[in-house]
Amino acid sequence: MPESFPADSVGLVTPQTLHFDQPLELDSGRTLPAYDLVYETYGELNAARSNAVLICHALSGDHHAAGYHAPDDRKPGWWDTYIGPGKPIDTLQFFVVSLNNLGGCKGSTGPNTVDPGTGRPYGPDFPFVTVSDWVLSQARLADALGIEKWAAVIGGSLGGMQALQWTIDQPERIRHALVIAAAPKLTTQNIAFNEVARQAILSDPDFHEGHYYEAGVVPRRGLMLARMLGHITYLSEDSMRAKFGRELREGRLNFNFDVEFQIESYLRYQGRSFVDKFDANTYLLMTKALDYFDPAAAHDDDLAQALAGATARFLVISFTTDWRFSPARSREIVRALIRAGKQVSYAEIEAEHGHDAFLAPIPHYRAVFSNYMHRVAEEVA
Amino acid sequence: MPESFPADSVGLVTPQTLHFDQPLELDSGRTLPAYDLVYETYGELNAARSNAVLICHALSGDHHAAGYHAPDDRKPGWWDTYIGPGKPIDTLQFFVVSLNNLGGCKGSTGPNTVDPGTGRPYGPDFPFVTVSDWVLSQARLADALGIEKWAAVIGGSLGGMQALQWTIDQPERIRHALVIAAAPKLTTQNIAFNEVARQAILSDPDFHEGHYYEAGVVPRRGLMLARMLGHITYLSEDSMRAKFGRELREGRLNFNFDVEFQIESYLRYQGRSFVDKFDANTYLLMTKALDYFDPAAAHDDDLAQALAGATARFLVISFTTDWRFSPARSREIVRALIRAGKQVSYAEIEAEHGHDAFLAPIPHYRAVFSNYMHRVAEEVA
Repeated sequence: MPESFPADSVGLVTPQTLHFDQPLELDSGRTLPAYDLVYETYGELNAARSNAVLICHALSGDHHAAGYHAPDDRKPGWWDTYIGPGKPIDTLQFFVVSLNNLGGCKGSTGPNTVDPGTGRPYGPDFPFVTVSDWVLSQARLADALGIEKWAAVIGGSLGGMQALQWTIDQPERIRHALVIAAAPKLTTQNIAFNEVARQAILSDPDFHEGHYYEAGVVPRRGLMLARMLGHITYLSEDSMRAKFGRELREGRLNFNFDVEFQIESYLRYQGRSFVDKFDANTYLLMTKALDYFDPAAAHDDDLAQALAGATARFLVISFTTDWRFSPARSREIVRALIRAGKQVSYAEIEAEHGHDAFLAPIPHYRAVFSNYMHRVAEEVA
Repeated sequence: MPESFPADSVGLVTPQTLHFDQPLELDSGRTLPAYDLVYETYGELNAARSNAVLICHALSGDHHAAGYHAPDDRKPGWWDTYIGPGKPIDTLQFFVVSLNNLGGCKGSTGPNTVDPGTGRPYGPDFPFVTVSDWVLSQARLADALGIEKWAAVIGGSLGGMQALQWTIDQPERIRHALVIAAAPKLTTQNIAFNEVARQAILSDPDFHEGHYYEAGVVPRRGLMLARMLGHITYLSEDSMRAKFGRELREGRLNFNFDVEFQIESYLRYQGRSFVDKFDANTYLLMTKALDYFDPAAAHDDDLAQALAGATARFLVISFTTDWRFSPARSREIVRALIRAGKQVSYAEIEAEHGHDAFLAPIPHYRAVFSNYMHRVAEEVA
């Protein structure tokens, strides 16, 4: 049903792949001699090449942020709510670039792609990547696309951390950073949750020290547990209560370990379906990139100092019920920006969805997002 | 070093076992034909048999609440801070009884004990037990000990739920209920965390559908994950930050999956050491007892109605940074008691420890606890 795409959809999109031969020196000290990046674009680059916007994805995201890959796709890209003609990231105004990060599992070079040096999947030998490594690889992508300066770099959660890192690592190449539902670094509790998720994967007998591709299996149990746990931290306690409460699937207690409460059914479903579409080695790498993110560390833990060289203007957005990266964490970013004398707008959005709010259709969020991007559009027109 | 026990310790204690032949009809509809309960006592029962106090344990607790089992024990029982001569539960005033609950793994009949019917460990065939089932079994223990009415039933967390249930199921046999760091029922999020813990155990290949004793293994990985996850919910975010921060064990990033942050080291240690002392089938049963606890359910979700028949007086205590069972949950209990016209004192203790605060030495908590128990002692003297 190709005619049935909504009018405000970017419609059918086709991912593209760019190969990079220039070696990438990584924070870990290792070097990636060559790599591919898969990306999508929506909208048109203007003659001045000034209207390009970069979308950075979160832990389990990918390049498919908007539109449809096939006419019969049941769901559009993960941020379709906010990218499209007339939407906050307006594809009538902007040329939108969305990539799968290095180390990902959706086509960019990562653990599940073949290491040309060995002819086998990288698996656990794929190097650790940091948020700064991603920014560097994204800058190479910008070079390849002829984009000297992004009108904006935009992301939620781990994506927001990339937007923030852009302003530090590539200050001349970014006009605006939209840092949504992010944090200046993980808390001890955030790291603790990541560690339990990692141990679930690492201790799964089907993990085979990361060489499960060759073994013809996947560490289903571990990845499923990791995702179930993740989901608890993505939802607010209130939204969980509102959606699932203490409702029993069969209306009465089972006195066994089958699904009993609706929340159990939801978590198991989320866990199972994730296993079919995501790679465990990538999951491990992404959690480490999160744990390592701490731009202030190299500046005596002073985030304002870390941001001293930034020339971008900032929109920081947080959500009231987000307990993974709470509003207090966004306010730390805002205060550091103010201390550093930067231009920053901040919105704390009343939302019941918890961390997942950055993906949800919320009128106030949409209005703030849209107004800001309108001003960016005028500036680069 | 037997002479070196502190003066306010109950000193050496020896667990005792009582065998019960009267069948126990359980909430699940199943019947336990006979069972053992292991318990300890501290202090002396007075002539009027009026000074007996029952201690109810939490998820991973047992009967060993105070004192030492051997002269060279490194640590006393789990609530030694609050039980002993001159302590809030003053063994000079009270006869204290502390048992291992049915379904436990420290000597009372449970999955790891032999089913006389089959000659093999019960394993997964041990029936599900509820908080009400425990109260009934504890009432039988009281009968056996010649205790008609407890001066107080006291517990933290799941133990506090038992104290609350006592006032509903056995209103004539309890003078005071001390309900500490508890909740009137689990939230959806509480159940979700329990479900992830259960799935970690159930999906461990060494679980063997609960028959791991016969297989000569234990589901180490699953139980370890369950415990690691539990620990995150027992500590407050602030106490985790204060204790572990983002400190690196080696002082620099590893770029591998070995222990890197101190919090990872702590969680792995907690997980590993738990596996050596706890049984996975019991862990599963305990989480289900928690999920099922909901005394208001049979009363149109009206806790005040559920408590209408209670004659006990209540002390409810919560801790400010407890996010597993937050002060708001304790206030629900208090409000229901007030609506039901019961006598209740409530203390919300400023404490940084999170849920584990109920075990910690906190002066304000100690004072409240002690003052209340002094009045109980006067009443039953």
